[in-house]
Amino acid sequence: MICEILSVGTELLMGQVANTDAQYISRRLSELGVNVFRHTTVGDNPARVKEALQTALSRSDLVITTGGLGPTEDDLTKEMVAEHFGLPLELHQPSMDALVDRMKRIHPDRPLTRNNLKQAYFPAGCIVMPNRRGTAPGCIVEQQGKAVAVLPGPPRELKDMFEQQLEPYLLKRQEMALSSRFFRVFGVGESNVETILLDLFHSENPTLALYCGAAEVTARLTASGAPGENLKPLLDPVEAEIRKRLGDAVYAEGRDETMEGTVLSLLLKRHETIALAESCTGGELSEMLTSCPGASGALVEGFVTYSNEAKMRTLGVREGTLKAFGAVSEPCAREMAEGARSATGATWALSVTGIAGPDGGTPEKPVGTVYIGLAGPLGASAQRFQFLGDRAWIRTLSCQNALNALRLALIH
Amino acid sequence: MICEILSVGTELLMGQVANTDAQYISRRLSELGVNVFRHTTVGDNPARVKEALQTALSRSDLVITTGGLGPTEDDLTKEMVAEHFGLPLELHQPSMDALVDRMKRIHPDRPLTRNNLKQAYFPAGCIVMPNRRGTAPGCIVEQQGKAVAVLPGPPRELKDMFEQQLEPYLLKRQEMALSSRFFRVFGVGESNVETILLDLFHSENPTLALYCGAAEVTARLTASGAPGENLKPLLDPVEAEIRKRLGDAVYAEGRDETMEGTVLSLLLKRHETIALAESCTGGELSEMLTSCPGASGALVEGFVTYSNEAKMRTLGVREGTLKAFGAVSEPCAREMAEGARSATGATWALSVTGIAGPDGGTPEKPVGTVYIGLAGPLGASAQRFQFLGDRAWIRTLSCQNALNALRLALIH
Repeated sequence: MICEILSVGTELLMGQVANTDAQYISRRLSELGVNVFRHTTVGDNPARVKEALQTALSRSDLVITTGGLGPTEDDLTKEMVAEHFGLPLELHQPSMDALVDRMKRIHPDRPLTRNNLKQAYFPAGCIVMPNRRGTAPGCIVEQQGKAVAVLPGPPRELKDMFEQQLEPYLLKRQEMALSSRFFRVFGVGESNVETILLDLFHSENPTLALYCGAAEVTARLTASGAPGENLKPLLDPVEAEIRKRLGDAVYAEGRDETMEGTVLSLLLKRHETIALAESCTGGELSEMLTSCPGASGALVEGFVTYSNEAKMRTLGVREGTLKAFGAVSEPCAREMAEGARSATGATWALSVTGIAGPDGGTPEKPVGTVYIGLAGPLGASAQRFQFLGDRAWIRTLSCQNALNALRLALIH
Repeated sequence: MICEILSVGTELLMGQVANTDAQYISRRLSELGVNVFRHTTVGDNPARVKEALQTALSRSDLVITTGGLGPTEDDLTKEMVAEHFGLPLELHQPSMDALVDRMKRIHPDRPLTRNNLKQAYFPAGCIVMPNRRGTAPGCIVEQQGKAVAVLPGPPRELKDMFEQQLEPYLLKRQEMALSSRFFRVFGVGESNVETILLDLFHSENPTLALYCGAAEVTARLTASGAPGENLKPLLDPVEAEIRKRLGDAVYAEGRDETMEGTVLSLLLKRHETIALAESCTGGELSEMLTSCPGASGALVEGFVTYSNEAKMRTLGVREGTLKAFGAVSEPCAREMAEGARSATGATWALSVTGIAGPDGGTPEKPVGTVYIGLAGPLGASAQRFQFLGDRAWIRTLSCQNALNALRLALIH
């Protein structure tokens, strides 16, 4: 099946927002084995929307549109789709009821305008896709073996509609069942993961694909079969092989898992607590961990000890250590972790001290030199890392590696 | 002038990256008064690249391509442009010299391959645009009153080439001079800024436009004139008017200025220091401030006191305060700021305590209730805010508003 994505919105052509919808849909379609050959973006202009739709349909089996479903005069995607297929727009009563109900809840005093109501009209005979996150439902129009799926522009609404409705439709249309598992890999580069899993990429079912994230790699394993088929027997042995080869580098399973979420879950499960002592990461490590709801159950306290003075006063780093080795050193990282642990009584403490740049590097400790310290029930230690990149990237890598160091201590 | 952007890259169609290049170019072109009518993305496929180029040129004056300039066989944008115009590819010696020199520096032991060398060949008679950030130069091919500008895909390289070379070319081509000023506005919503500046939007030269950012608005004032014309007299009176109407809400001037950078500069200029005490923002406030190089000159220390215990132990918040008012309260925010200031001896201290959600809200203090405390040479105070949004958004708004509270104290 060949697909094109047609995005409608003048705000995209003005550069006010990036087209993350097209990225999201493309990624999901690639998981479904659908080939995306083109993305096209046009403004809220009837002639250009219609022309782009016609061209896209002339060379693809499936066209997915995004945007142009709002209540204003400018929003005309659905209208152009109807016009293209020569279909009248008809009232869809369930959508009208949902719309009236939603507007009553949000704006109890505001009467519905004619423009609001247009969101409840659809090309005759189409499949309507309700919108659980907003007012504009989407739809699917099928004709002559081709299909146009019309999705709303706001990413939250679009994602929910894709997952709940368009994906099941596409699976049904392709007469297949699909099951994917996502393995999140940390500490092994993309090309290394590729080498380690090389022969597994040759399999046609399940298929294996890699995505390269910020400081990690995701391996996606996807099995397909007939509708209703149990795909577990296809997936289980390959999963076992992946886990055997990658070992501890697989830190989580799931599309949306994060390193910080994994570490937090491990701590909460063990009823253990953590304290943080940051220098070069400047609070980013705390920020990451506390971005997870429930972090207060494990994080006792974080210290951003940017100055030597703060390292001594708050964490008890010895003046002699700073004089002999400097703040960016293995002993300092170790003392920072020990100090944070004993000041707070936490089970564990993580520390980071390094040179994030752009200034401050020396031949012995160039920009990107980072020490990560870990203190726990069995003592304290620190590790040196050498990262490459700009300030923000070095800080992010430092945080991810600090969390990973704690994760490895927690699972061993 | 009508423009289309043609992005080339299978990684875009697979959804591995979002097309931020198209967004960036669109935004810059809208500043130059160039109309962008379409974005098209195709994969690394010769037939589709050529067809898309032909179609784009048939209806536009200017086509800007991104991507497909690398050293691999797949990279074929330049080749397809040459083929479209019937031009041979010719060696550009300065590019070859730069390429050889660059590769020698980065990989001294690796011989140049034939593929590397192809980056130094260009359609005959084109304008070559050197790449200061990478190996692939870009080019501009002009024919029959139309132009194709070929830019590399990596955003750092593309931005530099656009600003340094393509923008001046476009200004020359349009026979105009252009000067923009960007006013960063905080604490006044987009529609309010629009109302306050309403009559100024009617001016044709200079023009005024608004961009809506995360927690702020940017007003762009752009004057145009003949090449070499002094545009200051056009800009100065309107700038004065904007500043008069918006007052302190204008926190900085410049396209890339940030609230954290502004606050840091103010502190450094006054030789004053700051300490931070965070609860619900969990380190994000420290992270923001320390994302600016040179933050160590002003930030003494940050405390992430997530637990009540930490608030008492580290910041000296009184148990009675927590019992009587709770951790999310005006007195607690004030005591946190006072405690951070006296523990560190900093000139100023900022504190944040609130409910970022998704849980923890009550009828009196719903999710989004945040208190921001500020302690300084003249005493301490705290303010209540009510933010709407998800956890991440509430945290970010809290940080921005905390920094703004300090900024207002510093300039008054």
